[in-house]
Amino acid sequence: MKHLLLIAALPLCLAAPVTAQEEEEPVTPASIVAASSPDEWVEIAPEDILIMRLADDGSEAPRDVVIQLMPPPFSQPWVQNIRTLARARWWDGTSVYRVVDNWVTQWGDVSEEKALPEGVVSPVAGYETSKDLFGDLPDVGTADTTQESWIQSMRPTLRLGIQFGLDPYALRRSIWKGWPFAGTHFGDDSLVWPIHCYGHVGVARDLETTGTGSELYAVIGHAPRQLDRNIAVVGRVIEGMEHLSTMKRGTGDAGVYESREEDTPIEWVRLATDVEESEHWRYEYLSTDSDSFAAYVESRANRNDAFYTVPAGGVDICNVQVPIRWIDPEGDS
Amino acid sequence: MKHLLLIAALPLCLAAPVTAQEEEEPVTPASIVAASSPDEWVEIAPEDILIMRLADDGSEAPRDVVIQLMPPPFSQPWVQNIRTLARARWWDGTSVYRVVDNWVTQWGDVSEEKALPEGVVSPVAGYETSKDLFGDLPDVGTADTTQESWIQSMRPTLRLGIQFGLDPYALRRSIWKGWPFAGTHFGDDSLVWPIHCYGHVGVARDLETTGTGSELYAVIGHAPRQLDRNIAVVGRVIEGMEHLSTMKRGTGDAGVYESREEDTPIEWVRLATDVEESEHWRYEYLSTDSDSFAAYVESRANRNDAFYTVPAGGVDICNVQVPIRWIDPEGDS
Repeated sequence: MKHLLLIAALPLCLAAPVTAQEEEEPVTPASIVAASSPDEWVEIAPEDILIMRLADDGSEAPRDVVIQLMPPPFSQPWVQNIRTLARARWWDGTSVYRVVDNWVTQWGDVSEEKALPEGVVSPVAGYETSKDLFGDLPDVGTADTTQESWIQSMRPTLRLGIQFGLDPYALRRSIWKGWPFAGTHFGDDSLVWPIHCYGHVGVARDLETTGTGSELYAVIGHAPRQLDRNIAVVGRVIEGMEHLSTMKRGTGDAGVYESREEDTPIEWVRLATDVEESEHWRYEYLSTDSDSFAAYVESRANRNDAFYTVPAGGVDICNVQVPIRWIDPEGDS
Repeated sequence: MKHLLLIAALPLCLAAPVTAQEEEEPVTPASIVAASSPDEWVEIAPEDILIMRLADDGSEAPRDVVIQLMPPPFSQPWVQNIRTLARARWWDGTSVYRVVDNWVTQWGDVSEEKALPEGVVSPVAGYETSKDLFGDLPDVGTADTTQESWIQSMRPTLRLGIQFGLDPYALRRSIWKGWPFAGTHFGDDSLVWPIHCYGHVGVARDLETTGTGSELYAVIGHAPRQLDRNIAVVGRVIEGMEHLSTMKRGTGDAGVYESREEDTPIEWVRLATDVEESEHWRYEYLSTDSDSFAAYVESRANRNDAFYTVPAGGVDICNVQVPIRWIDPEGDS
């Protein structure tokens, strides 16, 4: 396999057991996650797990897309709408109707004629929260950014408020309770917001409203951070992303499929709490307060295994995918 | 179409003529490109255009992937290898054999047994050039980054050396002769290098060498900037990217297809100068020294059309796709 980009082995290794051999190999993000202890993992609340089953396309296994919904304090009015829509089985029989390369895959009711459940309205809400999640972080905004100390400043620090170096879209960015977010201002003036990364799910909207959550999209390309604070980010795909990212690109206006025959029908969408065998839909993430996560970020920002000759010295927050894994009901996670 | 993300209309509008109606609409990156003058466009050298035709999959049109090769001073030893490999028809009959979601699609000789043309060896070369392309740009590294002036500093400035705000991977980044690059140090100590963005093409390599260019990959997810300066970036896909990004993801080790039956055969790879009807393979890019490009970047960084309520005030260099369009041999570009 001499010609492979070795880092790409990461996703394959996430749930691999640690062996003596692996412990002797260079430290990588994958090896750090593999060596983490079970008590560093946090189960995702079942009411935050949304499952979308796509129509059978003849493949051997069902095409299930599993989405983790955004926890408080972010985007909750839309998240509540999404739970209501799922419980009303509103998406059943709708479709994936729009796919734009390096942009988004979008689904819902392309006819725009399907009545919404009672109470599902476009929230009158902002996309930011004034909660100061940054605590007493070092002030990136006034850091001495002459090269040497700037390179140092790009090195992630421990625990809540890990610094991901400098960012064109926000003064501050961090990962908190398993989610990346960005912010500006400081202390009492702090504003923070969830961000658009690959696989993140947002609420399509028109020019007049914030959208209800009935029409959703997943990012299938480079993070469109210019949408941050302009659209509600309500979740992220944690399993089955390839079902959305490999779909035929649309050739109609703005990437909408030209005919409904091109759509991918949605069989059903449910919360994990509302499906049979709920125990099969449990996931956990590596606590972003854990020592292993801090080491994982440090390794992401400073790859020093054999493949890398020049460690970056920093990392884009969207290149720090929080490790998430399925919980085997048989207890072998 | 009320639920669409309007910015996504950009790729569809690139070659649209300017109408009086459009001129009255809000300024967007698309409207700026549409309003550019013909003399602001620069033809890509035909010897820098590489065409890869994938085997017929029953679709109506041939699946052609068009790659623009990296111009000097970047990555030239590998680019020369790639021209030699194409002229030797080395890739004909090889395949696309590896696809990893949010990572890369990779092609070449999966058997690793095919002899290389004479003279195609792994270059002993670095990935940086010491050419100071930044000229006398403002020194981002020591900018006053207290919030207000920092927001200002994120606004792109004109011409060569547009600033894309702050970047976790490099002190400096710019777009020059149609290509994004990054750099560090200043003046006589300047080092600059090409970067990994969505659609960019790099040279797969092993741990011991820099690779020859026979095994290539295209980025199909969020820019893996940690690979910058660790792998040779040799080009970018300028047409047909969807053929690579929609391929079934591999389930074998590191995303290699488990069986060769899953591979996508490559029918042929040629330089535009070596195919019949070369006049059908001409492309041009919006000069990155032009007024329209400066306005395009400014608009990318500060969207103020109706869809946007909060302009970002900055833009990731990988979110500033240089406008590239096909030249119609009939003269109607």
